[in-house]
Amino acid sequence: MLVIHGGAGTINRKNMTEEREREYRAALEQALRTGQAVLAKGGSSLDAVEATVRFMEDSPLFNAGKGAVFTHEGKNELDAAIMEGATRKAGSVAGVTIIKNPITAARAVMEKSKHVMMAGRGAELFATKMGLDIVDPSYFWTERRWKALQEELLKEQQPQASLAVEDENRFGTVGAVALDKSGNLAAATSTGGTTNKQYGRIGDSPIIGAGTFADNESCAVSATGAGEFFIRWSVAHEISALMRYKGLSVQQAADQVVNKILKAVPGAEGGVIALDAKGNFAMPFNSEGMYRGWIGADGVPHVDIYRD
Amino acid sequence: MLVIHGGAGTINRKNMTEEREREYRAALEQALRTGQAVLAKGGSSLDAVEATVRFMEDSPLFNAGKGAVFTHEGKNELDAAIMEGATRKAGSVAGVTIIKNPITAARAVMEKSKHVMMAGRGAELFATKMGLDIVDPSYFWTERRWKALQEELLKEQQPQASLAVEDENRFGTVGAVALDKSGNLAAATSTGGTTNKQYGRIGDSPIIGAGTFADNESCAVSATGAGEFFIRWSVAHEISALMRYKGLSVQQAADQVVNKILKAVPGAEGGVIALDAKGNFAMPFNSEGMYRGWIGADGVPHVDIYRD
Repeated sequence: MLVIHGGAGTINRKNMTEEREREYRAALEQALRTGQAVLAKGGSSLDAVEATVRFMEDSPLFNAGKGAVFTHEGKNELDAAIMEGATRKAGSVAGVTIIKNPITAARAVMEKSKHVMMAGRGAELFATKMGLDIVDPSYFWTERRWKALQEELLKEQQPQASLAVEDENRFGTVGAVALDKSGNLAAATSTGGTTNKQYGRIGDSPIIGAGTFADNESCAVSATGAGEFFIRWSVAHEISALMRYKGLSVQQAADQVVNKILKAVPGAEGGVIALDAKGNFAMPFNSEGMYRGWIGADGVPHVDIYRD
Repeated sequence: MLVIHGGAGTINRKNMTEEREREYRAALEQALRTGQAVLAKGGSSLDAVEATVRFMEDSPLFNAGKGAVFTHEGKNELDAAIMEGATRKAGSVAGVTIIKNPITAARAVMEKSKHVMMAGRGAELFATKMGLDIVDPSYFWTERRWKALQEELLKEQQPQASLAVEDENRFGTVGAVALDKSGNLAAATSTGGTTNKQYGRIGDSPIIGAGTFADNESCAVSATGAGEFFIRWSVAHEISALMRYKGLSVQQAADQVVNKILKAVPGAEGGVIALDAKGNFAMPFNSEGMYRGWIGADGVPHVDIYRD
């Protein structure tokens, strides 16, 4: 079982063209098939979530890897995390600018360093030493995300102008949670953060317990949304705690956190995907839409974008 | 009420001189008095924990600020976080090298940016713009910590040599939790990380929910120990969750996490200080010792170092 998201925000039929929607659906389906192929061959959930997130990082559609949004200064600073439910081993990178696939760097931190989290130039040097794909920062430049930054900057100067900055440009993030044949869960999240974020800002995605978490006893979680709130409410770990200590199901726990706890906090917009070790899953979001999907043993991808 | 720690590890009477012990006790008492003076004047718990941690950052005795340990490359990279229990507002900085008091930078991130966490050069530029004290990186050089790094490096090359690297040089971290007259909790943690850590490594201290957490409904927590494990087990947030969802007292919850959950994980050494909104507190550790202390309304500081 594999569940993915491609970002939450003000995603509705009004601001979506038919062509754009087709592109997103196709990419989400392909991401699901990519991960499911790993699981079908008996691969681990860790391999499946990494492969899935890599595919989404390489797509310019999503705010991660190739499609990352720009910081206030016009750079792309990427964050990613991965976690294994059987061992609670975890790895993450933050603020990296030259690593083609941050999720693979996060996995290298987990498996080949004594650390869990590495940031900036140190993380980049580590990834380089590990032989990962290194790219020029210009690899991450896309016209769509550049325009989004220019609109945000204009909006800052002219707050009265009501410019239609696509909300997905703020909160887009990709993530995957998977359950393999051995009953092991894994979670992975990757993001460019938020358009116009300040130099050095770290969001919830690379924070274990906030945007990413996995534990076989409870669930695997990947989040997307207004990261600062997701950090302050330790969203992913809170879902796990509600399952472990209140006996809630994964659906109840995820819903409680997204649609009750976060919903009560102004600005705490976003959603999560959560999967337990029996294959039950939830994809709640309190925003207008969330790119999301799931695929089971039959290999048929299921994809949704809007609330209805 | 104010509770502090100054790091956990292999701290025992055997490897402590009388003079060194006197220095530590005096510094811990002074740190307690510094924070209590804020509370006694009706100051907020946030002001109290910041003042306390600043004092400990300025002391060369503790692995934070002036006394920070060295990375593998011979640099000092500092992490800090602060959180307010009433609002769950939080701020943190990671991997900073020129900010004299990282805890004050963390507070500036919380109060003067739209972000929760900032790392590296971006965090340093932000702190500079905010007018905080900036120092040359050489300010953080101390002979004691430099020697500790050289011993660690030698040990890496000669694993058979049993060199007495002081464990406090690995896991030292400072932290404070406080409760003010308005019934508000706050937590603050600051550290140089672990001796010989890799360039860019981020530990648990600046991770909200791992090394630092505060929530009036449950507790304020600051942790010290083998940070990678504290991240993977979301230690501070787990204590809060056990109080909120299992109805445990702050003593029971902190003890459960430190002496049961972490104790079962090889290498997960360390401790926490935890304080609830009624003034109950706990200072459990599973290492040989932990520099720790508390002070109440009577203004008398209580300090301990060893287990017995």
